[in-house]
Amino acid sequence: MKSISQRHDAYGQQMWTFLNGGGTPTEIVERDDGFVSIAGSNAAYFADVRHWPAAERKAIRLARGRRALDVGCGAGRVALHLQAKGFDVTAIDNSPLVVKTAKARGVKDARVLPFEQITRFKPASFDTVVMFGNNFGLFGSRARARRLLRQLHRMTREGAVILTQSLDPHQTREPAHLAYQRRNSRRGRLAGQIRIRIRFNQFVGPWFDYLLVSPAEMSAIVDGTGWEVDRFLTEDGPRFVGVIRRV
Amino acid sequence: MKSISQRHDAYGQQMWTFLNGGGTPTEIVERDDGFVSIAGSNAAYFADVRHWPAAERKAIRLARGRRALDVGCGAGRVALHLQAKGFDVTAIDNSPLVVKTAKARGVKDARVLPFEQITRFKPASFDTVVMFGNNFGLFGSRARARRLLRQLHRMTREGAVILTQSLDPHQTREPAHLAYQRRNSRRGRLAGQIRIRIRFNQFVGPWFDYLLVSPAEMSAIVDGTGWEVDRFLTEDGPRFVGVIRRV
Repeated sequence: MKSISQRHDAYGQQMWTFLNGGGTPTEIVERDDGFVSIAGSNAAYFADVRHWPAAERKAIRLARGRRALDVGCGAGRVALHLQAKGFDVTAIDNSPLVVKTAKARGVKDARVLPFEQITRFKPASFDTVVMFGNNFGLFGSRARARRLLRQLHRMTREGAVILTQSLDPHQTREPAHLAYQRRNSRRGRLAGQIRIRIRFNQFVGPWFDYLLVSPAEMSAIVDGTGWEVDRFLTEDGPRFVGVIRRV
Repeated sequence: MKSISQRHDAYGQQMWTFLNGGGTPTEIVERDDGFVSIAGSNAAYFADVRHWPAAERKAIRLARGRRALDVGCGAGRVALHLQAKGFDVTAIDNSPLVVKTAKARGVKDARVLPFEQITRFKPASFDTVVMFGNNFGLFGSRARARRLLRQLHRMTREGAVILTQSLDPHQTREPAHLAYQRRNSRRGRLAGQIRIRIRFNQFVGPWFDYLLVSPAEMSAIVDGTGWEVDRFLTEDGPRFVGVIRRV
């Protein structure tokens, strides 16, 4: 995805409005089959570590080294936490208003940078990469994930770790989700590759692919990219964190 | 509006799903300019009188006579309350699944009937008409409101009362709402005539006109239709109930 134009920055508008005391308490996500859902809470984007999901709270203790990359930083909850722990954090997001929000909250180095453009970082720049809040999804597809993982390998140092959260899409009984997943499988995609956009007030975000995977699918994607899954931190329900180590 | 086909019954699906312990806690409303909002709480459609908005709680005590018509009955909160008070209640809604929901909750006479088709009722059928939950909006436009009010006059008995709730659309500072209202005014419509549809999961409801008015606009609409506004019951904020008496 490219960086988002102001007119289509529904995600950023939502964050910026929420930061300023307005907006809606939750996020509206529209899938390309017309399925709409109310996803999570806007407050969750701003939450202190004590209010993170259990698996993320555990996983963040595994951050290592000195330099961290926060991919899809949102309102900066992860970046702020790691900064407070003494990390040098680079936080990236493709939404200008999200980056503005993160900066306003104290993230020192927040940049408008689409995930694809991490090629800009110098080799061996980071020790830890964090992709929380379902942000494994930002890999978009299996092929794109493998390409970006190889780039992340180049950009990271020996011993680096990726901490990344996903939702197992197979843990659902919603008929519309199951139909969508079958359609994906018929087209040779992973079941959980969804095309979605954010709606907020009059703002309609751009469509983008978001990849939900099971633990087994995550392992298979990571295999052979210079990384391997060290372990999974699970919770009740479909949410889990993969702890991925550089090999 | 006609009664809603199963495929487009987003509103009814939402109610039925909520009744059965699923679905989302809130309702997604999309306006024809692309503005989406998260409107109220699904629980509110099911709320006991003690949890109604203050103005509705006061107004319902003004129900009179023996026979009541509940227009746009939703999950039946008003009908159930009036039934318990000893009224004969006829509850109508244009959504088959909403009527199914109201019946499942104990509304004795709930019917799938679009508002236009109230011409079916015999003259002098009702003493009280209730249109709560923003259901003044179901009048749709000034002209349609005046036509339906004349029909309600025919269908009601001497001394009848309409209890109807609206939101004053002028009490906003949201730029997108103000722009929408200006566009309405330029087209000779009341500022608060909005075209909306309900979204729920994969269900996309039909577009319909929903009329939001100020107290003064409500008075002007009612004037000369065989009804007059007796008083307004107001709350903090844009919400109010008009108590309308048959003349």
